[in-house]
Amino acid sequence: MKLTLINANKSFDGWLKQYTHVSRVLACEMRFSIFLPPQTARGQSVPVLYWLSGLTCTDENFVQKAGAFRKAAELGIALVVPDTSPRGENVADDEAYDLGQGAGFYLNATREPWSSHYHMYDYIVDELPTLIEESFPVLDIRSISGHSMGGHGAITIGLRNPDRYRAVSAFSPISHPTQCPWGQKAFRAYLGDDIAAWGAYDSSLLIQQAKVQLPLLIDQGGADPFCDDQLKPESLLAAAEEANYPVMSRYREGYDHSYFYISSFIDEHLAFHHSYLYPKA
Amino acid sequence: MKLTLINANKSFDGWLKQYTHVSRVLACEMRFSIFLPPQTARGQSVPVLYWLSGLTCTDENFVQKAGAFRKAAELGIALVVPDTSPRGENVADDEAYDLGQGAGFYLNATREPWSSHYHMYDYIVDELPTLIEESFPVLDIRSISGHSMGGHGAITIGLRNPDRYRAVSAFSPISHPTQCPWGQKAFRAYLGDDIAAWGAYDSSLLIQQAKVQLPLLIDQGGADPFCDDQLKPESLLAAAEEANYPVMSRYREGYDHSYFYISSFIDEHLAFHHSYLYPKA
Repeated sequence: MKLTLINANKSFDGWLKQYTHVSRVLACEMRFSIFLPPQTARGQSVPVLYWLSGLTCTDENFVQKAGAFRKAAELGIALVVPDTSPRGENVADDEAYDLGQGAGFYLNATREPWSSHYHMYDYIVDELPTLIEESFPVLDIRSISGHSMGGHGAITIGLRNPDRYRAVSAFSPISHPTQCPWGQKAFRAYLGDDIAAWGAYDSSLLIQQAKVQLPLLIDQGGADPFCDDQLKPESLLAAAEEANYPVMSRYREGYDHSYFYISSFIDEHLAFHHSYLYPKA
Repeated sequence: MKLTLINANKSFDGWLKQYTHVSRVLACEMRFSIFLPPQTARGQSVPVLYWLSGLTCTDENFVQKAGAFRKAAELGIALVVPDTSPRGENVADDEAYDLGQGAGFYLNATREPWSSHYHMYDYIVDELPTLIEESFPVLDIRSISGHSMGGHGAITIGLRNPDRYRAVSAFSPISHPTQCPWGQKAFRAYLGDDIAAWGAYDSSLLIQQAKVQLPLLIDQGGADPFCDDQLKPESLLAAAEEANYPVMSRYREGYDHSYFYISSFIDEHLAFHHSYLYPKA
């Protein structure tokens, strides 16, 4: 697998680098960003936090707007930020912002025209970490976080792969996608009408079956306009409580769905991940 | 003067607000952003740092990318971020990115077609602070900073109005615009062929005439692709030395011209400004 460096910026004594590569599971060229903290320049290999972004985002929103590098540099955590879907002229798309390119929902599509490229689940779980761990001075110690559609991705992927991640966190995740308009529209298109198949990508359902309890932090802004109709954090919290799955839940009064909210609390999430990525002896 | 609120986001326990208003000196509608730190919600009035942005920017680049709110909230500094030129269909423009809209150079144009709207100097020095101080819980204690074209704006405005600002800082400023392609092109268009008129907007010339020495911090990335041809910080530093004008100069090895560089050191600039905005008794 080959990486092509397209941008490099020094930041907080570390390096933000942007690459393209040909993805096998997505059958297209993909772009991602990686922040390598200063420890890597001194010969140290560091753990990795994967950040999954929300609808319409690319790898660039988080790196430009989250203000995460200061703390990641201090804590010695690499940040890997993939795109939100397969991309390109030959990749199926839709005019709507919530389906197709920019809206991969971190699942493996099984229905045409989506199933030939839309395998973001396999890309995030397997292909990308393999590529990252072959190519950069990082350990195979991972955690995962994300926002909105990416919060959904982080929690579902974490719950299904507790052996691959040390911790999961999410800002304003789509918490019960089988029961909200964004999720139902995407799942019907990508997975078909058989609702039984949708459960593999629904945090509120998956958490009830979890055999291993990964540390889980959920963050929600109190002035988030999508909270009631689309995100439904209370469904996930209720399901977790029923399943005796411990969740650290943070409610932020007055905060909305934007990166101005995320940036306010990203340090807290990085400290949370750090405590599991660098466990005390 | 009336303000129209168009966006509000809670961030770091303060508020980012974006407004439009009709500017008298620019004869058009203008937009700006203001970050009000949490102290203002507790009844305190705070000093203001004005941030002047670079070529092609609006009020949004800094607020989204600089990561300045965490420290501004901690220190109790309001941030006011104006646009970089007059705007609108009736405002003269040019196809190039370095002339016309997005490229006001913080001067008062004297040549048509620019002179009917392009009075960014008066807007920044007088009209905007008056509006801000009438409309928000802020003091008339100001400082000024900026990047690239905005660094040029901050230094020239600071040097010409030492009674109005407590301190000046700049990231990668255009330091000697009468002697670089960006400056010569803009000054010729806005001010005409009489080069004598250009000196009023050239930091390297103004610093030699300064009667009052404002605290001045200059920051320059060592891997900035515009440094040698356009920015010429060494001209300003040499002129300052000749004039016995003390400058705190910071050279950042490996850093470029981007907000990934600015965000790495914005805390240092905010602390610098804080020490003059909140002088110890």
